[in-house]
Amino acid sequence: MSILQTFILFSFLLSASHAAVQDFCVADLSAPEGPAGYSCKKVSAVTVNDFVFSGLGVAGNTSNLIKAAVTTAFVNQFPGLNGLGISLARLDIAPGGVIPLHTHPGGSEVLLVLQGTICAGFISSSANTVYLKTLNKGDSMIFPQGLLHFQLNSGKGPALAIVSFSSPSPGLQIVDFALFANNFPSELVEATTFLDDAQVKKLKGVLGGTG
Amino acid sequence: MSILQTFILFSFLLSASHAAVQDFCVADLSAPEGPAGYSCKKVSAVTVNDFVFSGLGVAGNTSNLIKAAVTTAFVNQFPGLNGLGISLARLDIAPGGVIPLHTHPGGSEVLLVLQGTICAGFISSSANTVYLKTLNKGDSMIFPQGLLHFQLNSGKGPALAIVSFSSPSPGLQIVDFALFANNFPSELVEATTFLDDAQVKKLKGVLGGTG
Amino acid sequence: MSILQTFILFSFLLSASHAAVQDFCVADLSAPEGPAGYSCKKVSAVTVNDFVFSGLGVAGNTSNLIKAAVTTAFVNQFPGLNGLGISLARLDIAPGGVIPLHTHPGGSEVLLVLQGTICAGFISSSANTVYLKTLNKGDSMIFPQGLLHFQLNSGKGPALAIVSFSSPSPGLQIVDFALFANNFPSELVEATTFLDDAQVKKLKGVLGGTG
Amino acid sequence: MSILQTFILFSFLLSASHAAVQDFCVADLSAPEGPAGYSCKKVSAVTVNDFVFSGLGVAGNTSNLIKAAVTTAFVNQFPGLNGLGISLARLDIAPGGVIPLHTHPGGSEVLLVLQGTICAGFISSSANTVYLKTLNKGDSMIFPQGLLHFQLNSGKGPALAIVSFSSPSPGLQIVDFALFANNFPSELVEATTFLDDAQVKKLKGVLGGTG
Amino acid sequence: MSILQTFILFSFLLSASHAAVQDFCVADLSAPEGPAGYSCKKVSAVTVNDFVFSGLGVAGNTSNLIKAAVTTAFVNQFPGLNGLGISLARLDIAPGGVIPLHTHPGGSEVLLVLQGTICAGFISSSANTVYLKTLNKGDSMIFPQGLLHFQLNSGKGPALAIVSFSSPSPGLQIVDFALFANNFPSELVEATTFLDDAQVKKLKGVLGGTG
Amino acid sequence: MSILQTFILFSFLLSASHAAVQDFCVADLSAPEGPAGYSCKKVSAVTVNDFVFSGLGVAGNTSNLIKAAVTTAFVNQFPGLNGLGISLARLDIAPGGVIPLHTHPGGSEVLLVLQGTICAGFISSSANTVYLKTLNKGDSMIFPQGLLHFQLNSGKGPALAIVSFSSPSPGLQIVDFALFANNFPSELVEATTFLDDAQVKKLKGVLGGTG
Repeated sequence: MSILQTFILFSFLLSASHAAVQDFCVADLSAPEGPAGYSCKKVSAVTVNDFVFSGLGVAGNTSNLIKAAVTTAFVNQFPGLNGLGISLARLDIAPGGVIPLHTHPGGSEVLLVLQGTICAGFISSSANTVYLKTLNKGDSMIFPQGLLHFQLNSGKGPALAIVSFSSPSPGLQIVDFALFANNFPSELVEATTFLDDAQVKKLKGVLGGTG
Repeated sequence: MSILQTFILFSFLLSASHAAVQDFCVADLSAPEGPAGYSCKKVSAVTVNDFVFSGLGVAGNTSNLIKAAVTTAFVNQFPGLNGLGISLARLDIAPGGVIPLHTHPGGSEVLLVLQGTICAGFISSSANTVYLKTLNKGDSMIFPQGLLHFQLNSGKGPALAIVSFSSPSPGLQIVDFALFANNFPSELVEATTFLDDAQVKKLKGVLGGTG
Repeated sequence: MSILQTFILFSFLLSASHAAVQDFCVADLSAPEGPAGYSCKKVSAVTVNDFVFSGLGVAGNTSNLIKAAVTTAFVNQFPGLNGLGISLARLDIAPGGVIPLHTHPGGSEVLLVLQGTICAGFISSSANTVYLKTLNKGDSMIFPQGLLHFQLNSGKGPALAIVSFSSPSPGLQIVDFALFANNFPSELVEATTFLDDAQVKKLKGVLGGTG
Repeated sequence: MSILQTFILFSFLLSASHAAVQDFCVADLSAPEGPAGYSCKKVSAVTVNDFVFSGLGVAGNTSNLIKAAVTTAFVNQFPGLNGLGISLARLDIAPGGVIPLHTHPGGSEVLLVLQGTICAGFISSSANTVYLKTLNKGDSMIFPQGLLHFQLNSGKGPALAIVSFSSPSPGLQIVDFALFANNFPSELVEATTFLDDAQVKKLKGVLGGTG
Repeated sequence: MSILQTFILFSFLLSASHAAVQDFCVADLSAPEGPAGYSCKKVSAVTVNDFVFSGLGVAGNTSNLIKAAVTTAFVNQFPGLNGLGISLARLDIAPGGVIPLHTHPGGSEVLLVLQGTICAGFISSSANTVYLKTLNKGDSMIFPQGLLHFQLNSGKGPALAIVSFSSPSPGLQIVDFALFANNFPSELVEATTFLDDAQVKKLKGVLGGTG
Repeated sequence: MSILQTFILFSFLLSASHAAVQDFCVADLSAPEGPAGYSCKKVSAVTVNDFVFSGLGVAGNTSNLIKAAVTTAFVNQFPGLNGLGISLARLDIAPGGVIPLHTHPGGSEVLLVLQGTICAGFISSSANTVYLKTLNKGDSMIFPQGLLHFQLNSGKGPALAIVSFSSPSPGLQIVDFALFANNFPSELVEATTFLDDAQVKKLKGVLGGTG
């Protein structure tokens, strides 16, 4: 058999399967989104750069109230993750800094300490048990989906951690922001949390809440 | 640190995660639908009313042959359910009424009796076992996905039940409608169910079937 | 063909498919549990009562601090729900009562008001938007998975609601309990929520927290 | 580097990943079953024969009332399918034979005709639309999960088809068996299907039903 | 009650559930695709032909280097499969032919031999165990998702097999094509496979690879 | 209301929901495994250490043929990951080292370079397109589930990367190991890959393969 014949026939084999494959679905962020994620960019327009993200190499700015920064590589920053069940973020926490109590409604998180010392914990829903641990460089910890958790720099120098999520869009709900950084009426905040009026108004003042 | 600085820096934290979150996906009923549900309405257009539905407060009209009515709060009536794996319906069954033998191809159902007495049952596929129970106010019963089941008012007064489904689009296939309320050729109905020709034609007459 | 022959041959057909079917998986609460749920009770031991639960017919006792009660029909109370992606609960809320701010890490919730008036709301993670609504009898509202939400009796009489979840084990994490009803060290509570020490200790006193 | 060293070091690499992999989960049919399938046989006890099934090579016996036979390769016959989302069956249908109206609650089915002519159809739940087609050798047809469908030999010779399912345990619920081959009380069958008493009792007589 | 009244009232029942059902989602191949599959064709435009595919009745052309052909009925050829978790293909393998070592990244495969003798095998990732079997007419074998496997005609006549996949888009990655039929730089091929330069260049020559 | 009363009544509320929650499912590695993962350790036996893993802090030994090491934090090393859809590993690659061409049948991978320069790539199945990129510190890249990919140290110093997977058991199938490090008969290796006999035997010699 000639080489030419070979090409033709292998091409036949390829053409049969060519169109039916969906190896990946790079997000077209301008197209409709559905419950499973964004619409896919045309394969012909996809390049390797859709699968690469460079934003996690730069430290976040921790000169803020919480002395910490979260830099996300979720699907909106990194379209190649769409539909693939995973995403990343980096946590920079200055000495004395904290990632305040929060949840990720859409995914579990695993954290790996790259630098410094982090005191981390989560609270179970079944019995309100607190699982608390001081983590050093090289330690990893899992925070199950939807449970309240936090990370706090408990060392003397800066802390750096890489976190991975079991979803390209895990979400991030910080309790303080949910309560005090919007127009959630103080009366309702107080009625549903039993916090004192003065406490609520003080934190609304700090976080810009109204109502 | 000044309050102003705080706002700026918290905003930085927020902006990082802001766009990457998909807490919900309110159905845009006019946009393309996919296997996982409808396309999402733009978050900026979403209001609390997308998450609220008021159609289950009104009794269905039971002045009909089956003396019963099903009022659904599926995704097409209640767009906020899109992608969230749940939906509702209310069953009104007058004395002597019945929700005829049917399946939900897309989800399991759990029923809670709010008023009256309902005789309910389902049939397993493994051994054609009939699981049958008379339910009173406050009783709930689960009907596993895809299995034939029914609900019948076995009391003297009207019966009311709320049912929930494990899908925003569970579907509803009533055996009698599938057989007798369309153009399914009588010959094929008879050949695939062993029902007598007279029986088939009688029920087609009642339900408007042709062929 | 004789009737006898018919039975034999239909039995043949049945035997082929008999063992391969898993219509349901009633929880054997004493057997190992896995990520997808409990082990299944042997089908031969299953009765209709495994699919029926009667605990939602009785009002919860609201003579407590929150003037409210949650009565659950989750898989641990209602083993027939195992693996079927759905569960129920009833909320009884006396005048002035509240189901405090909480999340369900494992499922979405849809609520239907059966009696009274409920002010309900949830907060999105994407922008901390508060979706707030006063619900009357017959109104239903969806609370997407993992998001902070609450229900408060805003009427004059008692309120009753039925809630459904998209999981047989949705979980229930009440913020106040997670913070103040366990041994979560006050110092960490304060550092991760910015609440004042006095506030934390006051609520720990009420809810029995230590540390 | 010596070959010996190479082996040692590659072994190191292997040992790291060795235990963490779950390529397959051959069913241990005697161990507990859960919502996701059977427990896995120990990998050390698995042989290639767990992945091979030879039961589909033999024609089913069609000398019966329906002149048809279903031979299944579901997980209970073919343990290697456990957890892998697929199964098979063969349909033998003699001239005049039929696979009566039925559903598969747990999976979709795709049929491929290997011999003869089959008239097949399914009914949608959305509008009770009948999708009907005469299929010849080489034709395939999809029957979506949970919808009523049938296959009927509409040719002169025997028909043979291979069917695949999107589940290792799709289930098989034949309407006639669910109604007439068990102890489903005739009164309830009639009330929930509107079939005449004589019709119900006639078919119960044929299929061995009681009550 | 008059027949007319019946129609009206049954229609009422139907209209309630009509729009909320998604029994199937026939692919609109020209509309946006998402992670869960293609957008759905409007139900009003769907006909039975969307659920039927006739391309598997014709033998593939095996007059090629591998003496084999794969004819696929994936979602791109058979739009009715969209979202339903299943697809098909036929393998024609002439004497001496082979389906070279490959994987399906998106689904498990089950093969059924219809004609001839096939030597098939797959390799586990956990321990690189080779599961190898000679299959005759009527034998079926499962190849778990993502694992390297092959099929080889080990008989004297032509072989024919039908394969089913647990996905409408299982993908097909042939190792030789991935290495030698594209512009994968030879230097990188060699560095990542330890194949000799001459071997790589020889196979690139045969398969049309460059670089 | 007295504090005592409060405790009693809050306890009531807790007891209702207490048992029905499954926040996590720490693997009991000695108990039966199923398709969805390992059986859960009793919650009463779970400690924070089940959620913490310290094995990723130590560099793997790269003094081997590939000059690289993979250290995994999959569910078998890190039981707290069970059922949570995520896992980690670290890659140490000495200068000139390589993680040879491989797939993860069970999950997608995202890599983040912590040190050095890595040339990484994957090949699509749809068109055998090679997506190739040189990654520096801070760059991340996604490798979709099941596709062939590699990582190669293309810098002068050592390279270190952290990889995350969308499964607690993603698997790892190295093409060379699958072909040459077991008893896969050379004749079959050659027939299914078109590699020359000398090439196959040479690599079997290096990797310890037989047959």
